[in-house]
Amino acid sequence: MRYVRNAWYVAGWSKDLAVDKPLAMTILGDRIVLWRTASGGLHALEDRCVHRLAPLSLGRCEGERLRCMYHGLLFDPDGKVVEIPGQELVPPKARVRAYPVVDRHSWLWVWMGDPARADAALIPDAVGLDRPDYVLGHGQLDYAAEARLINDNLLDFSHLTFVHAQSFGSGPQFASTPARITPLARGIRYERWTENSYGSASRRSAEPMDNFMTYDFLLPGILLMTGGVFPLGTAQAVAFAAPDLGTAVSGVTFTSQAVTPMTDRTARYFFSWGPHRAHGDEAQRDILMGIAARAFDEDKVMIEAQQRVIDMTPSPTVMPTAHDRGVTLFNRLVDRLVRQEETAARDAA
Amino acid sequence: MRYVRNAWYVAGWSKDLAVDKPLAMTILGDRIVLWRTASGGLHALEDRCVHRLAPLSLGRCEGERLRCMYHGLLFDPDGKVVEIPGQELVPPKARVRAYPVVDRHSWLWVWMGDPARADAALIPDAVGLDRPDYVLGHGQLDYAAEARLINDNLLDFSHLTFVHAQSFGSGPQFASTPARITPLARGIRYERWTENSYGSASRRSAEPMDNFMTYDFLLPGILLMTGGVFPLGTAQAVAFAAPDLGTAVSGVTFTSQAVTPMTDRTARYFFSWGPHRAHGDEAQRDILMGIAARAFDEDKVMIEAQQRVIDMTPSPTVMPTAHDRGVTLFNRLVDRLVRQEETAARDAA
Amino acid sequence: MRYVRNAWYVAGWSKDLAVDKPLAMTILGDRIVLWRTASGGLHALEDRCVHRLAPLSLGRCEGERLRCMYHGLLFDPDGKVVEIPGQELVPPKARVRAYPVVDRHSWLWVWMGDPARADAALIPDAVGLDRPDYVLGHGQLDYAAEARLINDNLLDFSHLTFVHAQSFGSGPQFASTPARITPLARGIRYERWTENSYGSASRRSAEPMDNFMTYDFLLPGILLMTGGVFPLGTAQAVAFAAPDLGTAVSGVTFTSQAVTPMTDRTARYFFSWGPHRAHGDEAQRDILMGIAARAFDEDKVMIEAQQRVIDMTPSPTVMPTAHDRGVTLFNRLVDRLVRQEETAARDAA
Repeated sequence: MRYVRNAWYVAGWSKDLAVDKPLAMTILGDRIVLWRTASGGLHALEDRCVHRLAPLSLGRCEGERLRCMYHGLLFDPDGKVVEIPGQELVPPKARVRAYPVVDRHSWLWVWMGDPARADAALIPDAVGLDRPDYVLGHGQLDYAAEARLINDNLLDFSHLTFVHAQSFGSGPQFASTPARITPLARGIRYERWTENSYGSASRRSAEPMDNFMTYDFLLPGILLMTGGVFPLGTAQAVAFAAPDLGTAVSGVTFTSQAVTPMTDRTARYFFSWGPHRAHGDEAQRDILMGIAARAFDEDKVMIEAQQRVIDMTPSPTVMPTAHDRGVTLFNRLVDRLVRQEETAARDAA
Repeated sequence: MRYVRNAWYVAGWSKDLAVDKPLAMTILGDRIVLWRTASGGLHALEDRCVHRLAPLSLGRCEGERLRCMYHGLLFDPDGKVVEIPGQELVPPKARVRAYPVVDRHSWLWVWMGDPARADAALIPDAVGLDRPDYVLGHGQLDYAAEARLINDNLLDFSHLTFVHAQSFGSGPQFASTPARITPLARGIRYERWTENSYGSASRRSAEPMDNFMTYDFLLPGILLMTGGVFPLGTAQAVAFAAPDLGTAVSGVTFTSQAVTPMTDRTARYFFSWGPHRAHGDEAQRDILMGIAARAFDEDKVMIEAQQRVIDMTPSPTVMPTAHDRGVTLFNRLVDRLVRQEETAARDAA
Repeated sequence: MRYVRNAWYVAGWSKDLAVDKPLAMTILGDRIVLWRTASGGLHALEDRCVHRLAPLSLGRCEGERLRCMYHGLLFDPDGKVVEIPGQELVPPKARVRAYPVVDRHSWLWVWMGDPARADAALIPDAVGLDRPDYVLGHGQLDYAAEARLINDNLLDFSHLTFVHAQSFGSGPQFASTPARITPLARGIRYERWTENSYGSASRRSAEPMDNFMTYDFLLPGILLMTGGVFPLGTAQAVAFAAPDLGTAVSGVTFTSQAVTPMTDRTARYFFSWGPHRAHGDEAQRDILMGIAARAFDEDKVMIEAQQRVIDMTPSPTVMPTAHDRGVTLFNRLVDRLVRQEETAARDAA
């Protein structure tokens, strides 16, 4: 797995972590236990006791601490063992790794790299479920495929014309007209106008209109997408640049999506989607979630099949196409940062 | 897996391939997509898009062509990409492997070796489901075992006395009297008389008779078996040579069977069986298929257990017995041809 | 897997081996077939035919012999092939390994090492289901974990306070007071007094009493445990040595447990438990078995999770604690004996 470690990975939904109920999650092959305390503390440790490697996620919360329920070792939130039953002294080496963790935008974000570099300002601006201006539904899917394949999928929307011909009802435009793709410091920006169109399933209009969509795809695998329907001629008027979404006549929605690599062949996909409150209500949100359920299942069928083909291919190589500009830019960014991390690790060693 | 590649492998039943419904099959570890067109075309390609390795078997038929439904690349039946959405030029290297494929005797036959050597005359003379002189039932079984173990089973019928004591009701003769085994250019021929016998479950007679059975076992793993019941004394009269089946008094049946290696631990077994129309009807066919269902399950239990033992054995070696003449001849033939193919491949490289 | 081979392993319950019904079991990665004959014979062979490696456990008993039901080879109980259908001579090398096997204390014990060293006197003194002085229930569990982890669990009872807080209702004493642990020639002895206690779920008393428990944990993984409730002051009176169990006022039980390594990631756990007839009846036995069902499931959840963590850990290392004296002593004994066996094997080679 080549993934950036100095990044915030989504470990789960904030609402799914109850007080004093430890939760296990695997990210980049690391087993992690997260827990939340009555005082509001939020902690994440390596999910592996120093004694005999039992998972701490089967443990018991005691105040801010977590006790391994195999032989009772007690851990501080910083990973230090503070009590070993039957033994006076606790050796200083008795500690597990602690991970920086932040609860923001309805997600639990875990920093997988050097803790000294963990900067909450790097958490992408996802739209949380409690944002008053949006009416959001949400869900998650487990993939039997590596996360990179899902990232690649989200970085090239030309697949909408084919994979989602039925669900999103996307026409041939996605595959025939290029999007504007711009590199960002930690990802890429995707923008496209579809002029003189009745839209697709999630953004249908009675008259032909100009349709705008844009998303940022950010490290480690976060998609933040919005867009809307504008009067005919808007695209030309703004010279195909990004419009002021406040001037959209309808169809403004927001979706936040996160792809988390668990192991080298499994990933978890988190998503929310829904209309801006000015352009839709709970009923419209439910329609969107119905479309998403169908479309995301189409992706999953294709990507898991793709993974199986790759696994049976002796030396799998890809042949990028013109639509792969976003994929290529993003993967180059990942490669560059991974190399930097490897160099830094070697220098530190 | 040591299997001859220059041979026709059964990929499936002809009737199971509907027009414009691509079908995935794995043979010798190669993932293959087969499709049939409204014009009667029959095509087989490597089931892996050149772009990002998605399976073409999830694709859409367009005339004679097949479109990958991930990002829309369009393939000619010869494997060449003829269209890449969003891109003017198609690079010449954009192609996948095409496999010669023939629809014959109710089966779809795929040539896994050098296409230049694909010769439809090498397709064994199986009896198709539509042959007017036989009343055939059919079926298939998936094995969690390598194909060679099934071939070995079919090449030594002494197992009937033990594995199929109940289903075929085979007596001790199979294990105590040798069959005549003759090498063929692409396989072996097996012939045996059972004199003065009431037959077995599939060919029972009220009086003691002479019973004849014969099969050819041909590359890559095709069994074609027939036989019948003859008046007492016939075996001696024909000096134990093959009789004219037209002179059989009853019990003439035909079974065609094909063993297709999918991966190194999976295989698919196709079979048909039934009486000659002069010696039986649909009711008799159904009786035979009932016997086959039970017997083939007995084989599967034994062979899959044998595979599990082999997999747990550090250096598995066999100890051939006198009954293994057919097994040995056939496997030597395979080894010789595989070595020839390996030499040819090295010379070509 | 580092396990002593010169030891008696429990292959199953005596009552589960019916006359003429061969039984397959895997011990230390060796596939073994056991069978019992009408004459009272009990035999164990390598479960793998010399011919094509079919399992003999699918075979048929014929007198004292076992016939492979693939192609009919017939085996003597000493592993020698005595008949090959269709062949006059049986080559002398046609034999499989025979294992010494003994039926004792309701279990079938198989010696996995050098047959010349098999000594039935080394079979631990388990209490069989037919012992008149105890009322025993019994059961077994299959683990998706290596046997060593279960041994480790049974060698350190401080886990009772944590894993079994609910089922056995063990208080913090197990984790806070040390037991007396004594090395034995082929294992360790564990003894502990819990003074002035109401006991736990399996041995509750109305008044505070002195509670004694002791077990031997013997090669290859046999636990034999007993104990009882004594008048307050007994512990001090006997200077915390082992009391005469005949003087217990209540709560004397006996449990025999066997951990058998099947493969390097699977094990089978056999157990019986129940009250001494003077201290309980069938109803009390059923209460104990209910507690055991719950507690052993708690162990299984923890140990299988521990195995999964270990399997995902690049270089798993443990950090022993003060409670690990029994674990350490026993594993050192195993290591020393395994090294001796390895040396002996090298010298013999």
